[in-house]
Amino acid sequence: MTLIHDEPERFARDALEGFCDVHSHLVHHVRGGAVRATGTPDGKVALVIGGGSGHYPAFGGYVGVGLADATVAGDVFASPSTESVARICRQAHRGGGIVLGFGNYAGDVLNFGAAATRLRGEGIDVRVLAVTDDVASAPKETPELRRGVAGDVPVFKIAGAAAEAGMSLDEVERLARHANARTQSLGIAFSGCTLPGAEAPLFTVEKGAVAIGLGIHGEPGIRDEKAMSAEALADLLVEPLLAERPEGADGRVAVLLNGLGATKYEELFVLWTHVARRLRGAGLTLVHPEVGEFVTSLDMAGCSLTLTWLDAELEPLWLAPAHGAAFRRGHVEPRPAAPKPVETGTDVPSFPEASDASRESAAKACAIVERLAAVLAEAEEELGRIDAVAGDGDHGQGMRRGSASAAEGARKALAAGAGAGSLLAHAGDRWADTAGGTSGAIWGLLLRGFGTALGDRAGVDADAAVRGALAAREAVTTLGRAKPGDKTLVDALVPFVDALEAEVRGGARLRDAWVRAAEASTRAADETAKLTPRLGRARPLAAKSIGHPDAGAVSLALCARTVGEVLNAG
Amino acid sequence: MTLIHDEPERFARDALEGFCDVHSHLVHHVRGGAVRATGTPDGKVALVIGGGSGHYPAFGGYVGVGLADATVAGDVFASPSTESVARICRQAHRGGGIVLGFGNYAGDVLNFGAAATRLRGEGIDVRVLAVTDDVASAPKETPELRRGVAGDVPVFKIAGAAAEAGMSLDEVERLARHANARTQSLGIAFSGCTLPGAEAPLFTVEKGAVAIGLGIHGEPGIRDEKAMSAEALADLLVEPLLAERPEGADGRVAVLLNGLGATKYEELFVLWTHVARRLRGAGLTLVHPEVGEFVTSLDMAGCSLTLTWLDAELEPLWLAPAHGAAFRRGHVEPRPAAPKPVETGTDVPSFPEASDASRESAAKACAIVERLAAVLAEAEEELGRIDAVAGDGDHGQGMRRGSASAAEGARKALAAGAGAGSLLAHAGDRWADTAGGTSGAIWGLLLRGFGTALGDRAGVDADAAVRGALAAREAVTTLGRAKPGDKTLVDALVPFVDALEAEVRGGARLRDAWVRAAEASTRAADETAKLTPRLGRARPLAAKSIGHPDAGAVSLALCARTVGEVLNAG
Repeated sequence: MTLIHDEPERFARDALEGFCDVHSHLVHHVRGGAVRATGTPDGKVALVIGGGSGHYPAFGGYVGVGLADATVAGDVFASPSTESVARICRQAHRGGGIVLGFGNYAGDVLNFGAAATRLRGEGIDVRVLAVTDDVASAPKETPELRRGVAGDVPVFKIAGAAAEAGMSLDEVERLARHANARTQSLGIAFSGCTLPGAEAPLFTVEKGAVAIGLGIHGEPGIRDEKAMSAEALADLLVEPLLAERPEGADGRVAVLLNGLGATKYEELFVLWTHVARRLRGAGLTLVHPEVGEFVTSLDMAGCSLTLTWLDAELEPLWLAPAHGAAFRRGHVEPRPAAPKPVETGTDVPSFPEASDASRESAAKACAIVERLAAVLAEAEEELGRIDAVAGDGDHGQGMRRGSASAAEGARKALAAGAGAGSLLAHAGDRWADTAGGTSGAIWGLLLRGFGTALGDRAGVDADAAVRGALAAREAVTTLGRAKPGDKTLVDALVPFVDALEAEVRGGARLRDAWVRAAEASTRAADETAKLTPRLGRARPLAAKSIGHPDAGAVSLALCARTVGEVLNAG
Repeated sequence: MTLIHDEPERFARDALEGFCDVHSHLVHHVRGGAVRATGTPDGKVALVIGGGSGHYPAFGGYVGVGLADATVAGDVFASPSTESVARICRQAHRGGGIVLGFGNYAGDVLNFGAAATRLRGEGIDVRVLAVTDDVASAPKETPELRRGVAGDVPVFKIAGAAAEAGMSLDEVERLARHANARTQSLGIAFSGCTLPGAEAPLFTVEKGAVAIGLGIHGEPGIRDEKAMSAEALADLLVEPLLAERPEGADGRVAVLLNGLGATKYEELFVLWTHVARRLRGAGLTLVHPEVGEFVTSLDMAGCSLTLTWLDAELEPLWLAPAHGAAFRRGHVEPRPAAPKPVETGTDVPSFPEASDASRESAAKACAIVERLAAVLAEAEEELGRIDAVAGDGDHGQGMRRGSASAAEGARKALAAGAGAGSLLAHAGDRWADTAGGTSGAIWGLLLRGFGTALGDRAGVDADAAVRGALAAREAVTTLGRAKPGDKTLVDALVPFVDALEAEVRGGARLRDAWVRAAEASTRAADETAKLTPRLGRARPLAAKSIGHPDAGAVSLALCARTVGEVLNAG
């Protein structure tokens, strides 16, 4: 149980504040994250890491000399918003470019990816690194589908050391990818964790059983087995990792035995005696092994074993000095203090000059976004109910919050004279930043993609709407990596865009085309909802699914219909 | 639950081995503990710390430069044996004397105290420091009755820094006592912990309640309250500690917010925001606060807050560099490696030359110890049953193990030509070392006290037996600090010794005097058993009770009767 908290909604934010207060000699608290409190030279590559909260020492404990330059902290088990990632990256940037490190989860892939796109637009070179170490989540042949778990630690440690050594952005990125490719983990779980304010665990493991490969947010594992001795557990963890030995590896490995929260130190040390014996028995040399709590999952009981197959490049980086709140190695010379970054407001950005036609379309776009917010507020409960079947039931809440913030942003943008493109892009940013999580990020991408394609010069006509819809779909499917049939919002988006394009190409007016496209989208969403099995604990692999498997499709169709209504009403 | 283990009996030993393997650059594994793997100068005061296992990072994580020189690890939640403490002290001693640091629990007081006595007999100057920081366990006026909890950390940190700075034994002891006097803690608990192999928790807290001041082994606290917000919890922890502010304290404090195992980092950071605000609001300056897991209790849920009121002497020691497996501060220069200490056997020590008369008495003494072992093996189940009413039910097991080992030691001592005094002293050491815990330590003191008074020159007659009994009682009551009426073995021991003395002074033969003394002891034990309430969770405060509250008295009377039978049979 997570028992110490005030308002559960504030938990992650409060924890970040407390962490930064205790470690104020190491980190500065900034909105949504923390940046190094020690000076770094201009031109140094910045390593910015992050993800959901609830995993301490990940990620704040790994900010420091020889480690990361900053961390972005989302809500508990939820990705930070695109805006947070981008803002903290700007604060951490020293002119040498940025490597963005995070675990390979849909929400993080979307938000860190979208932030990278924004930052590149501002002239900052950003490289994106999703850690993919969890062998239980996908086969060896598709490492890009694997989740990131405790392998974050050696990969970020190595990337941080490379950056600290003054290597170029290309080099830091190459070494980080190289470390990631040679890092694999396998975890076991005995019990799930309980979110702040929740009465029951987020997921459970049968009493007397050990779940092999269960993800740290309850994602399905490989199988359950009956509880066993420490010696047998060690075999079970070691064998699959030995099978991943890269060709030509010389047998020197970094090792991390990680406790998930309620599995305590003495248990890990007992397990270590067997793990070490098995690894040494396989002829491996264990280079500065670590046993403790490195990537936790609130009070989840269980542990994971991580191996990084070192080579002549990686070993010195693994062994290099480091000094963060939760990771210290070797002897780091004291550094001068760095001033706390100035926080910049985000309320009303300035917008590029827009044509009269585009400003006229912007008024219409604003009305549409406001109507979406009203409809989604009404639909909150129903969407939550649908989502609870296969997801965590918060989809309605996220859509309500995100659309409300988007409507507010749209009104401000309209008042500031923005064109239709900028207005929609800004509304999308607000949606993503307020809703957070995966579906927030997707809706942010949809609106920003649509808006960017429209631009602020011409008014919006049927052709422009098709261009916008195609761009929005492209943005979502590229970053989100979902295909139709994956039981996500894409199932309803693709038929919509296809129908809209066909109708407009066939000469239909926009208002008619949109209504028919919305009908196609609704049919597809109904189909998806019907096909989505009652998954219970077995939520789909995060890396393979974006958003809420059926509720996301349902809400997209609802929004499509709503836009159609506004178009026909005006 | 403690879920990862092999044979539960091996858990603590296996955990120690694993810890030492991971941190082999910092510690050498020795039997029953760990010593620094880095060289220390000759003449440096050695700080040796320890206690039961299950509290990692306490105590192994605090061995290192600027911290302790060695740790002695008992079984889970059980004191290490006198022999272990003494042996590891010899390995850590660099000629500058030793400060022995441990929490104020009966078993530790006995075993560390007895080890100090042994070592002083060998010419090593040893100072004993029982940490007494838990304000929930006794009032301010009787700090010596307070338990030691997370206050261990600042006290040992400060003592370790003083020793590292080359201060004299007197100075290190003085500063450690000074730090202890200015260190107070208060803990709260949400749930108990489960021992390796156990099905149910060692103790429980009502669901939805928070137990204020509950000890880390389930010792009773102050009261239970309903669960409350983090803000309210902070008030509850801070207020009683502010009330302990020493006169003249300037308001600079070291602060430690400690998680007990299953209460995780983010929760502690949330709590910290309020704790820090309250403390600063009271005008305090927080000097290098620490928030994390420092003294755990397996997977217990809860936390504790510790304040050390600094002054001009203590602050630099609190801030001094340190480098242990679980505590690092500042910048410690690398040290040369130290060789692993040679392990010395303990099986058959050499004995002083004995008279023929004493050797003859030794044969009788050996027969007595062997008979005790036989009787206690038979009584194991019954003693366990009695003990389970108010204790943890392992008294029968400890008595069986201890007496069997004592009998084996007695036989070897007899074969090696030991006199009666040395034979009993050696049997006592074996008893204490094998049985472990509090009652093992007491029986070791009893036999060693008895044997030392007898000596190896004269044969054993009635007067010698009285001298032996008086010395045994003295040894137990001095180190154990229990008085008759405390519901301990002393309740049965004092009437025995009084009656034996009176009978012998009155002219009775030893065999008759002993039988009547045993009868007096039995009556007293029955009385104690009758008076001992069904305590349930509320085991007596460890610092106030020695041994098992009634089973200890019962087994002492049983042993007294058994000795009487042997005396009358021979």
